[in-house]
Amino acid sequence: MTKIKIGLFGFGVVGQGIYEVVRKSKNAHAEIVKICVRDPKKPRKTEADPSLFTTSVDEILDNPNINLVVEVIDDARAAYDIVKRALLRGIPVVSGNKTMLARNLPELIDIQKTRNVALLYDASSCGSIPVIRNLEEYYDNDLLLEVKGILNGSSNYILSRVFDHKDSYANALAQAQALGFAESDPSFDIEGYDSLFKLVIITVHALGTYVAPDRIFTYGISTIHDSDIRYAREKNVKIKLVAQVVKVSDRHFTMFVMPEFVTPSKYIYSVDDEYNGVVIRGECYDRQFMFGKGAGSLPTASSILSDIMARLNNYRYEYKKMNYIEKPDYTTDITLKIYARYKETEVQKILNFSKIHEQFTSEESNYVIGDILLSELIEKRSQLSGKDVFLANIPIFFLNRD
Amino acid sequence: MTKIKIGLFGFGVVGQGIYEVVRKSKNAHAEIVKICVRDPKKPRKTEADPSLFTTSVDEILDNPNINLVVEVIDDARAAYDIVKRALLRGIPVVSGNKTMLARNLPELIDIQKTRNVALLYDASSCGSIPVIRNLEEYYDNDLLLEVKGILNGSSNYILSRVFDHKDSYANALAQAQALGFAESDPSFDIEGYDSLFKLVIITVHALGTYVAPDRIFTYGISTIHDSDIRYAREKNVKIKLVAQVVKVSDRHFTMFVMPEFVTPSKYIYSVDDEYNGVVIRGECYDRQFMFGKGAGSLPTASSILSDIMARLNNYRYEYKKMNYIEKPDYTTDITLKIYARYKETEVQKILNFSKIHEQFTSEESNYVIGDILLSELIEKRSQLSGKDVFLANIPIFFLNRD
Repeated sequence: MTKIKIGLFGFGVVGQGIYEVVRKSKNAHAEIVKICVRDPKKPRKTEADPSLFTTSVDEILDNPNINLVVEVIDDARAAYDIVKRALLRGIPVVSGNKTMLARNLPELIDIQKTRNVALLYDASSCGSIPVIRNLEEYYDNDLLLEVKGILNGSSNYILSRVFDHKDSYANALAQAQALGFAESDPSFDIEGYDSLFKLVIITVHALGTYVAPDRIFTYGISTIHDSDIRYAREKNVKIKLVAQVVKVSDRHFTMFVMPEFVTPSKYIYSVDDEYNGVVIRGECYDRQFMFGKGAGSLPTASSILSDIMARLNNYRYEYKKMNYIEKPDYTTDITLKIYARYKETEVQKILNFSKIHEQFTSEESNYVIGDILLSELIEKRSQLSGKDVFLANIPIFFLNRD
Repeated sequence: MTKIKIGLFGFGVVGQGIYEVVRKSKNAHAEIVKICVRDPKKPRKTEADPSLFTTSVDEILDNPNINLVVEVIDDARAAYDIVKRALLRGIPVVSGNKTMLARNLPELIDIQKTRNVALLYDASSCGSIPVIRNLEEYYDNDLLLEVKGILNGSSNYILSRVFDHKDSYANALAQAQALGFAESDPSFDIEGYDSLFKLVIITVHALGTYVAPDRIFTYGISTIHDSDIRYAREKNVKIKLVAQVVKVSDRHFTMFVMPEFVTPSKYIYSVDDEYNGVVIRGECYDRQFMFGKGAGSLPTASSILSDIMARLNNYRYEYKKMNYIEKPDYTTDITLKIYARYKETEVQKILNFSKIHEQFTSEESNYVIGDILLSELIEKRSQLSGKDVFLANIPIFFLNRD
């Protein structure tokens, strides 16, 4: 490829960021030749030549000059259709759509292989932090033990406001939305789904295994109460929404998304505001920590630009770890130590703890700290949903090696 | 390449680490077939099959089964000869020798191109932190503005002991040596040369330009005094040995290694002990921070393993930025604000400050804070060498955008 000619789908904040970034990068040898949007007349912050716009998907997919599709639309279903159609025609794609990717990766990997075409999506996880590329290339070996981090900027922003600025949860959420950190549907961020989808993608490149999102325990921060925050402050920990995939033995790994009590000695303790931070732990290199802006128009766009530039060298993910002879299997048969705060809901009648370490009851609220199987949490999650209950992970030995 | 057959030069701490790591990585498809050492009988911590050893360089270079040379010997001159000979014969090389690389990169890049052969050296800079690979691949665009960091573990260990544990400088140095962090010649670490050589290599991949080490201002920590430490503590800053390359305008960049007053808001403030930390700043992605173990047997070996695995896919550095049409030029015509502490030596008679901000004299020691051209510091460095003077950078506007 001597010049990248881009057909861009979507011209929201990220699409406009890409337009800016491609223009700024004189050595990129890249050019946006067409932009497909639903409504070309919609007022937008960035002005682009009106002749660039089209409402027709085919006008891009049928254009023989276009050698790269960049997809940054919100709608996961529409994104899936566009990406699949482009790949089936042999057109390489760069996508930032984590929901679409996390749900459809096995099929999309298969199409990449059978059609010998590239799909790159480093921007889908942690914006400008190069997590996927490094897992795929630099940590391409058996030494990897764990990837753990704060993958969602808006929930982290909310928790930072609450912990560092003693703001109320409701205020902090409103502020995150006003600043544009939170997605249009805030539950996507604060219930942990955004982190979950990123974790699914990361795990494919960390350990070579795809685990469907609905098989993974995911618990968000929407039910956090003042008493939880007070409890954490008293113990000198912060509550962070943490996603993790961990090898628990040579033969098994586990993964989940849930709030966690983070002690000051951990790298992610100091990941505040809208930032993301990822710890990659390996058998020989110990811990690598990567930190940066996880979202936003220009950081995401610059990550998309990295994928665009990689296409100049015909780069594609090889999914090498999927071909490893010995791969660990996903398990939920591991014991977590958790904090469960409740009021009316009798948590101990729902959740089957294998051991209770602490119990506290008061007029205001109650909590229990106990050991529980991850599989038990998955089984009971629908019973806990919508209840006045807050769960947080208290990292124990196998996750607690800082 | 279906299987990597390695001829290893050097079996010191790093060489032994590679031996361990390659054995642990079952999916690496790599095997060490010969190890060239000066003395095969020398007692070593790691035991390897005696038949693996040779003292003859040719026995590796003439072996048609060997498709990768891994060079991890101490002696830069001998390393240069081996690496050059291997490349000229078309054998790809992985090297960790920063001194050799920083001095000879232009020639070695040229040989790589003319002979179409790969030389990889991610381990040479910051051990297990993937700085070079990311600068070469992920930050392959015009957006990069600055790479700045703590690149030397042992000087950082010493400064941490002094600042966080209120240890004396002499004690801290002795401890670093006892723990094996410091190189055999400690001046390499504490005078800044280790950081300098890494910075030279990093700059090639950050901005596409090679600057010879002797053209770069390098000032270490060996003359630090209690009064400097007291001064820094009073101002609530830490003194860190910082290497940096910074675009100062669209057309120019500068680079230098010197102690710096680091405020608590900076990412590198919390890089303590033997760790390394690198901040990559770009026009759109703002700051990315990477943190990890910069040295040691296994972290360095795991980084070498990443380069070995990259050869399975015939990866090589393309030095793409060297071909950029518009590249910034190196300049030393920039003004720094520095702290200069002295006693007998009359610093102001040697250094030509363009402006003096503060001046302090006392019975014990004196200091001046003033603006000075980087070129002036380079010109006068030999006059300052060996004197009871300590210089530290006080980051000003163009370097101070946290």
